[in-house]
Amino acid sequence: MTNITSVVLLGTGNVGTHLAKALTESGIEIRQIYSRSQENAEEVALPKNIQAISDFKEADTSADLWLISVSDDAIPEIAGSLPDFNGIVAHTAGSIPLEVLSRFKKSGVFYPFQTLSKERKIDYNDVPFLIEGSDEETTQKLLRLAGILSAKISRADSSLRATLHIAAVLSCNFVNHLYSLSADLLESGGLSFKYLTPLIKETTQKILYMSPREAQTGPAIRNDREVMEKHLKRLENNPSLREIYRLISDDILKYHKQE
Amino acid sequence: MTNITSVVLLGTGNVGTHLAKALTESGIEIRQIYSRSQENAEEVALPKNIQAISDFKEADTSADLWLISVSDDAIPEIAGSLPDFNGIVAHTAGSIPLEVLSRFKKSGVFYPFQTLSKERKIDYNDVPFLIEGSDEETTQKLLRLAGILSAKISRADSSLRATLHIAAVLSCNFVNHLYSLSADLLESGGLSFKYLTPLIKETTQKILYMSPREAQTGPAIRNDREVMEKHLKRLENNPSLREIYRLISDDILKYHKQE
Repeated sequence: MTNITSVVLLGTGNVGTHLAKALTESGIEIRQIYSRSQENAEEVALPKNIQAISDFKEADTSADLWLISVSDDAIPEIAGSLPDFNGIVAHTAGSIPLEVLSRFKKSGVFYPFQTLSKERKIDYNDVPFLIEGSDEETTQKLLRLAGILSAKISRADSSLRATLHIAAVLSCNFVNHLYSLSADLLESGGLSFKYLTPLIKETTQKILYMSPREAQTGPAIRNDREVMEKHLKRLENNPSLREIYRLISDDILKYHKQE
Repeated sequence: MTNITSVVLLGTGNVGTHLAKALTESGIEIRQIYSRSQENAEEVALPKNIQAISDFKEADTSADLWLISVSDDAIPEIAGSLPDFNGIVAHTAGSIPLEVLSRFKKSGVFYPFQTLSKERKIDYNDVPFLIEGSDEETTQKLLRLAGILSAKISRADSSLRATLHIAAVLSCNFVNHLYSLSADLLESGGLSFKYLTPLIKETTQKILYMSPREAQTGPAIRNDREVMEKHLKRLENNPSLREIYRLISDDILKYHKQE
């Protein structure tokens, strides 16, 4: 079984841009980078001396892998529009089932379980990669490709991957939104968000050493009605935050009730 | 103006236990530790050769400071029940106004803006302390006491402190609850919570270098309806998490709409 050594990368978003860099640095040949916009494709491709394309028909059919890294809801359309291909076609999305690529003989999923922003460098060695393939040989090839980038590679079928994606949304996207709402509160009081960073760091540090269930503190777990009512009152002019406050507080109380 | 050098500590919860240790190690004399339960008081006090008391009437009126560190909703009652005292009486609560201590001539607030669990060591130097006093001399004395423990001390009146406390609830207590819910999802798929820690670490790291508004990723900010509907469907048997998912996703979308 030969390894994957050449890739056409479709998509220049956060994940695509990161993978272009990581794969190139690991000695994988990126043959082409596709974006709907030729300009976007060139922005990522040209500095690395890679061909930029904005037309599927130009996709290099001699590459080992076509890696689709566009936004989740664009994957079905792109999967339907690509030319025929005898190599492996894989996508990088947590919540899109493998079946969306079923028109290709060999298909797979190559899902980095990490939040990727273009501006941030990542230690890929610490990024779990979740792999699925249409057949054992494809799975093995994708596992080995991921193994070049990371020490944490696992198989995960579409159902497990969807569950993990929900957990990622909660622990990363929703958490970050709570940081945004907190930043606004601090700024309304004339304070920098930096004031919160020791608390945020410690909240994260704690759960490396104890379970989040054990780490829970705050008015909701103490059922401190007076403080919660006071907070809700202060949030009167911010109905959506008020609703979030009420709902999560209720859930914390319920979650820990049996303790 | 003399400094505070002797303290009676009232309360043996997370904050009280931490302050007993930190103040003792900084050379402040803790004269007595009070808890409603003599046993709890002794557990914290005796290893440090401090007197344990469970009756307010025994509180040492020759100490410089009585520091109340009981749960927020117990503060008004304890403030009403304490004997008369000519020293400073302060509490450590974010959301309780200074006025709750108005029967004392000198009163204040000594609020550590950090999450404290008994089991976790803390670098106090990095803990912001928010200070308020009934008069300038009292404020100065409390600021100097905090300055022995930490490099980050600020004045904050009761209104600003309440705003900061809400931000702390969002960024710490609610975030930790989202970690708990995520841990349950991973465990339901047979995976350890540790699988999520690279993602959680990176989410926290990011906001040290960019604003949370810039750091936002995920299906909600992309308005990726298909993924969100899929997630909601998978959460059908978990109505409270489903409601949290929907509410925060809607709020993320709304928050970033004008961009």
